Amino acid sequence: MLSAPNNIVMVGIVLKQSRHALLAPRLAAFHGRGLHLSSVAQSDSDFPNLTARKDAMLPPDTFKGKTAFITGGGTGLGKGMATMLSSLGAQVAILSRKLDVLEKTAEAITKQTGNPVFPLAADVRDSAAVSSAVDQFIESTGGLPNVVINNAAGNFISPTERLSANAVKSVIDIVLNGTFNVTLDIGKRLIKAKQGANFLAITTTYTHYGSGFVTPSAAAKAGVKNLTQSLASEWGWYGMRFNVIAPGPIYTKGAFDRLDPSGQFAEHMRQGIPLGRFGEVEEIANLATYMVSDYASWMNGSCIDFDGGELPFHAGEFNRMKQVTPEQWDMIAAMGKKVKGSS
Amino acid sequence: MLSAPNNIVMVGIVLKQSRHALLAPRLAAFHGRGLHLSSVAQSDSDFPNLTARKDAMLPPDTFKGKTAFITGGGTGLGKGMATMLSSLGAQVAILSRKLDVLEKTAEAITKQTGNPVFPLAADVRDSAAVSSAVDQFIESTGGLPNVVINNAAGNFISPTERLSANAVKSVIDIVLNGTFNVTLDIGKRLIKAKQGANFLAITTTYTHYGSGFVTPSAAAKAGVKNLTQSLASEWGWYGMRFNVIAPGPIYTKGAFDRLDPSGQFAEHMRQGIPLGRFGEVEEIANLATYMVSDYASWMNGSCIDFDGGELPFHAGEFNRMKQVTPEQWDMIAAMGKKVKGSS
Amino acid sequence: MLSAPNNIVMVGIVLKQSRHALLAPRLAAFHGRGLHLSSVAQSDSDFPNLTARKDAMLPPDTFKGKTAFITGGGTGLGKGMATMLSSLGAQVAILSRKLDVLEKTAEAITKQTGNPVFPLAADVRDSAAVSSAVDQFIESTGGLPNVVINNAAGNFISPTERLSANAVKSVIDIVLNGTFNVTLDIGKRLIKAKQGANFLAITTTYTHYGSGFVTPSAAAKAGVKNLTQSLASEWGWYGMRFNVIAPGPIYTKGAFDRLDPSGQFAEHMRQGIPLGRFGEVEEIANLATYMVSDYASWMNGSCIDFDGGELPFHAGEFNRMKQVTPEQWDMIAAMGKKVKGSS
Amino acid sequence: MLSAPNNIVMVGIVLKQSRHALLAPRLAAFHGRGLHLSSVAQSDSDFPNLTARKDAMLPPDTFKGKTAFITGGGTGLGKGMATMLSSLGAQVAILSRKLDVLEKTAEAITKQTGNPVFPLAADVRDSAAVSSAVDQFIESTGGLPNVVINNAAGNFISPTERLSANAVKSVIDIVLNGTFNVTLDIGKRLIKAKQGANFLAITTTYTHYGSGFVTPSAAAKAGVKNLTQSLASEWGWYGMRFNVIAPGPIYTKGAFDRLDPSGQFAEHMRQGIPLGRFGEVEEIANLATYMVSDYASWMNGSCIDFDGGELPFHAGEFNRMKQVTPEQWDMIAAMGKKVKGSS
Repeated sequence: MLSAPNNIVMVGIVLKQSRHALLAPRLAAFHGRGLHLSSVAQSDSDFPNLTARKDAMLPPDTFKGKTAFITGGGTGLGKGMATMLSSLGAQVAILSRKLDVLEKTAEAITKQTGNPVFPLAADVRDSAAVSSAVDQFIESTGGLPNVVINNAAGNFISPTERLSANAVKSVIDIVLNGTFNVTLDIGKRLIKAKQGANFLAITTTYTHYGSGFVTPSAAAKAGVKNLTQSLASEWGWYGMRFNVIAPGPIYTKGAFDRLDPSGQFAEHMRQGIPLGRFGEVEEIANLATYMVSDYASWMNGSCIDFDGGELPFHAGEFNRMKQVTPEQWDMIAAMGKKVKGSS
Repeated sequence: MLSAPNNIVMVGIVLKQSRHALLAPRLAAFHGRGLHLSSVAQSDSDFPNLTARKDAMLPPDTFKGKTAFITGGGTGLGKGMATMLSSLGAQVAILSRKLDVLEKTAEAITKQTGNPVFPLAADVRDSAAVSSAVDQFIESTGGLPNVVINNAAGNFISPTERLSANAVKSVIDIVLNGTFNVTLDIGKRLIKAKQGANFLAITTTYTHYGSGFVTPSAAAKAGVKNLTQSLASEWGWYGMRFNVIAPGPIYTKGAFDRLDPSGQFAEHMRQGIPLGRFGEVEEIANLATYMVSDYASWMNGSCIDFDGGELPFHAGEFNRMKQVTPEQWDMIAAMGKKVKGSS
Repeated sequence: MLSAPNNIVMVGIVLKQSRHALLAPRLAAFHGRGLHLSSVAQSDSDFPNLTARKDAMLPPDTFKGKTAFITGGGTGLGKGMATMLSSLGAQVAILSRKLDVLEKTAEAITKQTGNPVFPLAADVRDSAAVSSAVDQFIESTGGLPNVVINNAAGNFISPTERLSANAVKSVIDIVLNGTFNVTLDIGKRLIKAKQGANFLAITTTYTHYGSGFVTPSAAAKAGVKNLTQSLASEWGWYGMRFNVIAPGPIYTKGAFDRLDPSGQFAEHMRQGIPLGRFGEVEEIANLATYMVSDYASWMNGSCIDFDGGELPFHAGEFNRMKQVTPEQWDMIAAMGKKVKGSS
Repeated sequence: MLSAPNNIVMVGIVLKQSRHALLAPRLAAFHGRGLHLSSVAQSDSDFPNLTARKDAMLPPDTFKGKTAFITGGGTGLGKGMATMLSSLGAQVAILSRKLDVLEKTAEAITKQTGNPVFPLAADVRDSAAVSSAVDQFIESTGGLPNVVINNAAGNFISPTERLSANAVKSVIDIVLNGTFNVTLDIGKRLIKAKQGANFLAITTTYTHYGSGFVTPSAAAKAGVKNLTQSLASEWGWYGMRFNVIAPGPIYTKGAFDRLDPSGQFAEHMRQGIPLGRFGEVEEIANLATYMVSDYASWMNGSCIDFDGGELPFHAGEFNRMKQVTPEQWDMIAAMGKKVKGSS
């Protein structure tokens, strides 16, 4: 299992991520949730039940009259969740530092769904800027959000010993303090207004046992998971629900086209996922919209791993025996019988 | 928080469960997933977003042409899941030892949904009986199931030192060996037929840290959770997905009407759930049908806690400070300021 | 179980902690690991095997020729671990912002053990100050540390909605960034020197499911746990081992004497610990010294809960049945027999 | 990382285990805790702090006047723990089905330590036989045990679809019901006698996320872990402490000498352990004796992973980047700088 990947390809992959991520002070929004892959065609599964369903599963007007506040909503998964919420009737605001990206995304979503999408330019690390963005949200939508998705992220893919204390701090500030900033500001207002809301945070599966080479992201995301469960306990009583999705590798278009042209690295990763493919943005959007909808109104403090089985597969010591062929198992069984009684 | 419950009431509760559960050899189907409560009116939440939505969230024909095999489907949560699957177009078979109960349930569901429901009488502890039931399923539906829900359970609510080795064995046989029996039999046939399927198991939140007074159930359910993740890793490659719901206390009609007439015990439990109410059968049915639908076709090896935040609330050491009033916090803050500098 | 504590007493407890913790900008070193209690006499257990053994269990010279670097070592648990390491032959440095406290502690330990203890004044939030402290350590001891214990902590016991973004940031800076600062600085030097070391971090049991009223501490400590496992994976290859102790409530002298004079609050807490007593500093010191000794040289990436069973007891839904008396269980059993066959 | 192992060697490994494990009805005591390896010389680490210390760490008479009851104590880890307990003064009984093996082991230990060791022949699946063995223990030692170690195990290394329901049942009976049988019998007597005791169970790291190819063992061991935490909560109040060690691959002499003559498979496994070597029996014995000693008298309900970091290393998604060389990271960093501003 897991034969050594071609290092050249590996370097290519890392390079792309480093381009996103290593260039201080512009800490880019690599989403720290596994790799986003595109250069491989997603192979259709031999099993029809494993083929991604990309249509929205919730009833069309599930979020009619509701509003949503999504950080990091300009691209990738955030954009995907924003799009589906909008398609289900929500007024959505997307927040990041890059107004131009947000505006393009907002326009594109509105064009598709017919519902307004509001771009909010702010750095989640700056609590005052977050507060202004919430003011702006209220002005635009007429009230506090019904749904809040903490999805903004930053990451460095690097040996930890090559990181400065500042680089570590940047990631923690975005991921953990950023989540606190958004949640505190909106939560305080909701408590004052005696209004509930449904919160969701996006982390990664490596919150559970950590991971080298992404240590600030892993630690900060683990903090976000803990915060979710802490506030589920403390603020559930105020009508706020808090949950997490911990995704594995999700396929996003264009991410690695130039960098993994042969698709070898992606193919290698794919082979570590028991269901044999990456996740699709629409699939996580379906899960996320369910979790922030009132169909999940009793779900609170839950962390849902969503990774095709990648984590249990790698974690389970004997799963490496997948390489043994049926013929070899036959042989083993036969030899087992021969030596019967000798034990 | 958690003021001492009235012992008389407590005894009543226990008694009812013991009636279900203590009478060997007829180990009854107490579902071992927290308490099912009915004598309290479910108080409407002050927060509209916390009110249970009981309509099916998936599109009407999601399971058109699909079949489902549900153990313990005659009553309670199993019946609830069977009903929703049927209402979404599935042909459903429900399996337990009690044919009369199954037949009544089957008839009732069909009357409501218009789709056939097949009762299968078998004891999940008996692998040969399970195999015959699967034969019967194939005969009735024309093929292997697309969905398998391991929901059968047994429990003793008792100090562990009052249990015999046989009592322990009974619970483990139903919960853990029963799940193995069903899963092995159907899984082997699916592998042979090169057909995938979506598996779900129902456990409880006390799989995570155990619980006294239900130790055989807790241990066996922890085994079921582990089996789910083991097979997610091993059989995912054969097109089978495996997931778990770990529910907290779900409200089921009639369960404790005579035994907790004042509703005091239920009220006490309710006060330990941050969202302020029990779960509803339809809510877990919505979650379950999503998980076994192809909208979740990348979910594998996941265990979803579904408990309104009960587990994190009890587990978190400082959540007991919920009792401190706002006025007391004010006082503390004021005194804090006074002693400034003295630390 | 867990009858409501006397609120006055509760307030007293909170007050003391708030005095330590609420006074910005002097964020005091409440250790965020449950409560440290003193006003109750630790009741001797009826069971001799549950009585704390306070003598050092490791052989006398286990740390002869070794050096240790301990943050937050001036008081409480940190001081306890420093003392035992010193008594086992180590040269120990203790680091915090308060030189006067450190000097007193250092002197006291040396007096007891005969081995030198070095006070290092630095704020763990300041990476440059940490680096200077490590320089000073090397100067004092002649080399890089063999043992590093990240024990510094800060906490606010407060409803989360009463915290400012700055207060949150202070705790995260101390607990999570502080741990990164120390670990990065020493780790980089160790890698360069091709020298191994044994790392330990002290967190709390509420890293597992979070806790309200201490949310910044909980989130940051969860980050520390994750970092430990991430670096266990990444830096194990460089000869560094990383582990965690997650303690429950440890008894420390003088902590609450004035504030819980009746001992009611402590008594209430004690009743939630299956072993019937708080932990003792020497007990955690024995565990910690083992973990950083070469007797544990294959332990890596482990998080050891050390709480007398407090967490599983509270987390397990049916543990609240502890209140049912033997007589009531008898009655239940008798009634169970009477209704035999009726189920 | 994890280059594909030589399949021939893999088959050899499996064969040996199958010889132990596949031959019903004699389900052999493969200990289900990773692989026990011997054909490789344990490479000395470059880091002195990672070298195994094999001398007993506890004071010589720690278990003077104490007695211990160990299942599966005739070989491997069980024998190792029995030996160290005996060397520290305990009277030890070892229990398995094979009296001849037990007698040899008992004699060997006594010869080494000078303390009596009692062989108890019983099948842990048979509660009556267990009860007789406990009677015999009392007769031999004069009382109930102070220490109980549930270490007996059984396993099949096989694709799950090749297992019969009976094979599954055998493993669950040994591992989970066996642990219940021993614990129930001794626990009931201790409660009656108002005597405490220290319990330990040996599981594996794959209790956490399961593992394919060993599914009955994984599920049953997860049950044992849960039982430990359940009884920590319920029976802690009776003076009984319950804890678990979840070991990774431990090196045991002679296990695979003929079957992995080249040591390739072992070498492959070793490369997945951040500390670069397997565990040693004496190391787990030191941890185990600590946990059942009164130095750990506040440890209760804890599960200690002991695997050199193997689990977090495999579980962490980005740990596979370990293969990237320093030169490649340099190149990445350089290219990152070149493309600065392009993101």
